[in-house]
Amino acid sequence: MELKDTVKAFKAHQKKMHAFEHATALLNYDAATTMPPGASETSGDTLAVLSAEIYRMTVDPSYREMLCQLNERKDELDFQTRREAEELLEQMEKMEKVPEEAVVEEQVAQNESSHYWKIAKKKNDFALFAPYLSKVIRIKKRYAQYIDPKKDPYDVLLNEFEKGMTQEQMDPFFADLREKLVPLIKAVGKAEQPSVDFLQGPFPVDRQKELSAYVMDVMGIDKDRCVLRETEHPFTTEFSKNDVRITTKYIEEDLTSNLYSVVHEGGHAMYELSVDDALIHSPLGHGATTAIHESQSRLWENGIGRSFSFCWLIFPKIKELFPRQMEGVSAEDFFRAVNRAQPSLIRTDADELTYSLHVLVRYEIEKKIFHDEISVEELPAEWNRLYKEYLGIDVPDDTRGVLQDAHWADGAFGYFPSYALGTAYSAQIMASLRKAVDVDRCCERGEFAEVRDWLTEKIYRHGMLLSAEQLIENACGEAFDPSYYTDYLTEKFTGLYRL
Amino acid sequence: MELKDTVKAFKAHQKKMHAFEHATALLNYDAATTMPPGASETSGDTLAVLSAEIYRMTVDPSYREMLCQLNERKDELDFQTRREAEELLEQMEKMEKVPEEAVVEEQVAQNESSHYWKIAKKKNDFALFAPYLSKVIRIKKRYAQYIDPKKDPYDVLLNEFEKGMTQEQMDPFFADLREKLVPLIKAVGKAEQPSVDFLQGPFPVDRQKELSAYVMDVMGIDKDRCVLRETEHPFTTEFSKNDVRITTKYIEEDLTSNLYSVVHEGGHAMYELSVDDALIHSPLGHGATTAIHESQSRLWENGIGRSFSFCWLIFPKIKELFPRQMEGVSAEDFFRAVNRAQPSLIRTDADELTYSLHVLVRYEIEKKIFHDEISVEELPAEWNRLYKEYLGIDVPDDTRGVLQDAHWADGAFGYFPSYALGTAYSAQIMASLRKAVDVDRCCERGEFAEVRDWLTEKIYRHGMLLSAEQLIENACGEAFDPSYYTDYLTEKFTGLYRL
Repeated sequence: MELKDTVKAFKAHQKKMHAFEHATALLNYDAATTMPPGASETSGDTLAVLSAEIYRMTVDPSYREMLCQLNERKDELDFQTRREAEELLEQMEKMEKVPEEAVVEEQVAQNESSHYWKIAKKKNDFALFAPYLSKVIRIKKRYAQYIDPKKDPYDVLLNEFEKGMTQEQMDPFFADLREKLVPLIKAVGKAEQPSVDFLQGPFPVDRQKELSAYVMDVMGIDKDRCVLRETEHPFTTEFSKNDVRITTKYIEEDLTSNLYSVVHEGGHAMYELSVDDALIHSPLGHGATTAIHESQSRLWENGIGRSFSFCWLIFPKIKELFPRQMEGVSAEDFFRAVNRAQPSLIRTDADELTYSLHVLVRYEIEKKIFHDEISVEELPAEWNRLYKEYLGIDVPDDTRGVLQDAHWADGAFGYFPSYALGTAYSAQIMASLRKAVDVDRCCERGEFAEVRDWLTEKIYRHGMLLSAEQLIENACGEAFDPSYYTDYLTEKFTGLYRL
Repeated sequence: MELKDTVKAFKAHQKKMHAFEHATALLNYDAATTMPPGASETSGDTLAVLSAEIYRMTVDPSYREMLCQLNERKDELDFQTRREAEELLEQMEKMEKVPEEAVVEEQVAQNESSHYWKIAKKKNDFALFAPYLSKVIRIKKRYAQYIDPKKDPYDVLLNEFEKGMTQEQMDPFFADLREKLVPLIKAVGKAEQPSVDFLQGPFPVDRQKELSAYVMDVMGIDKDRCVLRETEHPFTTEFSKNDVRITTKYIEEDLTSNLYSVVHEGGHAMYELSVDDALIHSPLGHGATTAIHESQSRLWENGIGRSFSFCWLIFPKIKELFPRQMEGVSAEDFFRAVNRAQPSLIRTDADELTYSLHVLVRYEIEKKIFHDEISVEELPAEWNRLYKEYLGIDVPDDTRGVLQDAHWADGAFGYFPSYALGTAYSAQIMASLRKAVDVDRCCERGEFAEVRDWLTEKIYRHGMLLSAEQLIENACGEAFDPSYYTDYLTEKFTGLYRL
C-alpha cells in the first residue's frame, strides 16, 4: 500500500475506534448518572460486546501491519500522525507482552476483589478482603514481569499512569513533602481554627444548582459543549472536545462539596474542551497524563478557586442565594473557612494542605508491597502507623483506614502518586501563569479569558501530542520542581494561620 | 452445520445485534435528554459507525445462510426461535429488494426535507418546504414499487407500521369514526364547557416531580428498571425489559401536560417491562406493533387515567401538593376539567374525543398523495378544508396547519393511522379488561396488580411473538371491532356534556 493510503486507512481506523470508545464511555456515564439500578446486567452485556469489538480491532493483523509500516517511515509523516503511530504501536507492543489468559484472569480477580472490598468496607472486616487483595497483588506482580522483567515492578506500574515516572524521581519529591509538610501540619493543628459553622446549611439543592451554573459561567465553561449532572462520586468524562460531561453531588449540609466539585471537574473539563480541533478523532485528543489532568483540576480548584480574589468574586452570589445562612459572614470569613486545614481520616475529604500526605502513606505502602517488604496481613497496622506519624491521628477502624479507597481492589497500584504529583505540577504551573497573567485582576473583573488562553496555549491544546515533561517545560520554561508546591503551601498556610 | 449449532450461532448474532442497538438507542436517548447542543456532530459520527456495523451484520452472507437454513427446518425449532427466524428472514428479504443507493438517497432526501421543514414551519412558508416534500414522496412511491409493484403503494406503507394493515380494513374504520364522531364533536362544541382555570397554575416544577413519582408508584411501575427524565417531546425508549426510559416535560402553567405524559409513557413502559424473560436479547422482545404499543399507552392514559375513579384516587395527592391552586376544587371538577373536549388546531394537544379526527384528516390526505390524486401544492388548501369539515375550525396559518407535524418531512407516510387504530384497540381491550377485572375497585384501593397481571397475560408478555390480530383475539376473544371505540366515546362524552 502507498504511504498516503496507509495514513488514510489509519485515520479511518482511529475514527471507528473513537466511535466504539464513545459508546462505551456513554454507557459508563449513563450507568453513573441515570440508569435504573436493575439495568446493570443489560449494560454489562452491551459493554462486553463493545469491549470485545475494540479488542478485535486492536489485535487485527492488518492494523498491526499498518502501524509497523507507519513507524518504519515515520520521518515522512506529519507530527500528529507520527505521534499517533508511535503511541499506538507502543500500546500494541505492550499488550502483546501479556498473554490473553492473564488479561482475563486479571479482570476476573479484580471484579472479585472489588466485590469483596465493598462488603469488607461495610463490615469493617479487612480479613474478609485480604485473600482477594493478595491475589490481585500477585497478578499485578506477574503483570510487571511480563511488561519488563528487568525493571523494578513498581516502576512498571507507576509508568502505567504517568509515563516515564520512576521511584528515582518520586522519592525525592515525596521526601520533600514529608520534610516540609509534616511539621507545617503539626503547627497548623495547634493554631486557632477559623469558623466553618456557616458552611453547614441547610442549603436547598435548587439554590446550589443555581450556584453551579453561575460558577461554570464565571470560569467560562462552554455550556454548548459541556453539561453538569449529578452522581454519587463526581467525575469528568468526555466523548470528544465537543461533548464533555462533568458531575457533582449535592449535600444539603455542605456548601463547599458541590461548589469545589464543580470548580475541580470544571478544570478537567476546560482541558478537554480546549484540545486542538485537529485531534478530534485522534487517540491523542485527550489530556496528556493522569497527573497533568489532575494539575488542571487542582489549578482551578485550589490555585484559583481557593484564592482570596476568587472567594471575593463569588461571595456576593453566595450571599444572594443564601442570605439567611450567610448573615454576618464576610468574603474574608468565607475564604478562611474554605481553606481550613486539619488532619483527617479520609483522603477524598482532605483539605489542600493535608491531601498529599494521604497520598504519601499510600506511596510508601505500595513500594513495600511491590518490593516484598510487607505482607497483606500487615497492611492495616502499617497504614495506621503512618497516619499517626504523618498526620498525627489515630485510625479508629479499617473502614476509615486501609479499606477506604477502591483503587487497590481494582488493581490500580501506582495510581495514587499521580494525584500528589498533579497537585505539585499545578503549583508550578500556577506560579508561571501568575507571571504571565494578572489572575487577581481576572477575579476582580470576573473574566478569565486571559487565563484560559494562556492555559490553552501552554497545556490544553496539545492533548497527548506532548509528554508531561514537555508540557511542564512549555508552561514553566524549566523542568518539574516540587519546591513550588511546598513553598506555596508553606506561604499560604503560614499566612492564613498566622504561624 | 448441525441445526443446534446454527441455532446457537443465531442466538449469538441476536445478542450482538442487541448490544449495537442498545448503544444506538442510548445515543439517541442521551441526545434528547442530556447531551449538550454542540455535541450533535460527535454523536452523529458515532451513530454512523454503529449503523454501518449493524448494516454489515445484517447483510453478512453467513448470516443469510443461517436464516435460510433455520427457515427450511423451522418445524424442528421451538416456537420462539421459529418466529425469530421467520421475522428476520422477512426483514432481510424486504431489505434486499431495495438497492443500497436508493436507501442512501432516501436518507439524504429525508435529512434535507426535515431541515427545510423546520425552517418552513418557523417561517410559515409551505412553498419553501414543498420541493423537498415532493422529492420525499417521489422516493417513497419508488420504495413501495421496490417492495411490491403489484400492491397499492399506500398499503405497502401502512404495512411498514402495522403489519398486515390495508386500506380495505382502515376505510370502514375511519368511516365509522367520521360518521359517529363528527356530529358528536359538533354537539359537544355547542354544550357548556367545564372550568379548567385551576389547571393553569403556576405549578412549581419540583412539586410536579413529586406528582410524577407518585403516579409511577400508583401505576406500579418498577423504578428499579425504569427511570423518568425530562425532554422536549415526551417519549419512551427501552434497552431491555430491565432498562426502560420514560420522559416528560414540565410546564409551570399546565398541570395535566406532565401528569398525562407520565401516565401515557408509563403505559408504554409497563408493556416493555413485562415482556417475557426468555425474550431478553431477542429481536422479538419488544411491543408487537406501533398501534398495539399505542393501545397500551392510551389504555392507561385515557381508559384508566381519565376515568372518574382514577381522578378520585389521585386527586387528594394533587390537593396535598398544590393546596392553594386546588382550593375549592373537587375530584369531580378535576375529572371534568381533564376531560374537556374542544376542536383544536394541533394534533398533539388534542383531547381524547377529537384526537382521531386529526388522524382522519392525515389518512385521507395520504391516500390521495399515494393515489396521485393531489399535488403537493394543493396540500395546504386540502388540509384546511378537511379541518373545517371534520373539526369545524379555520386554520389560520400553515405553521398550525399542514406544517405542524415532523412525520411527512421524515418520510413516515402511513404512520399516522396507527395512532388512531391504537386508540381504538385500547377501547376494545379496556372493555374486555373491565369484564375480567373490577378496574374501579382497583382505583378505590390504589392497587393495580390485577390490571397489570391481566394485561401481562393477554398482551405484554408475548412481545412480538404474536401478531396484532392474535393479541386482540387473545385479549378480547374476538377480532378487532372499531365500534367499541366510538361507543365508548359516545357514552362518555354524552354523559359528561349531558347531551
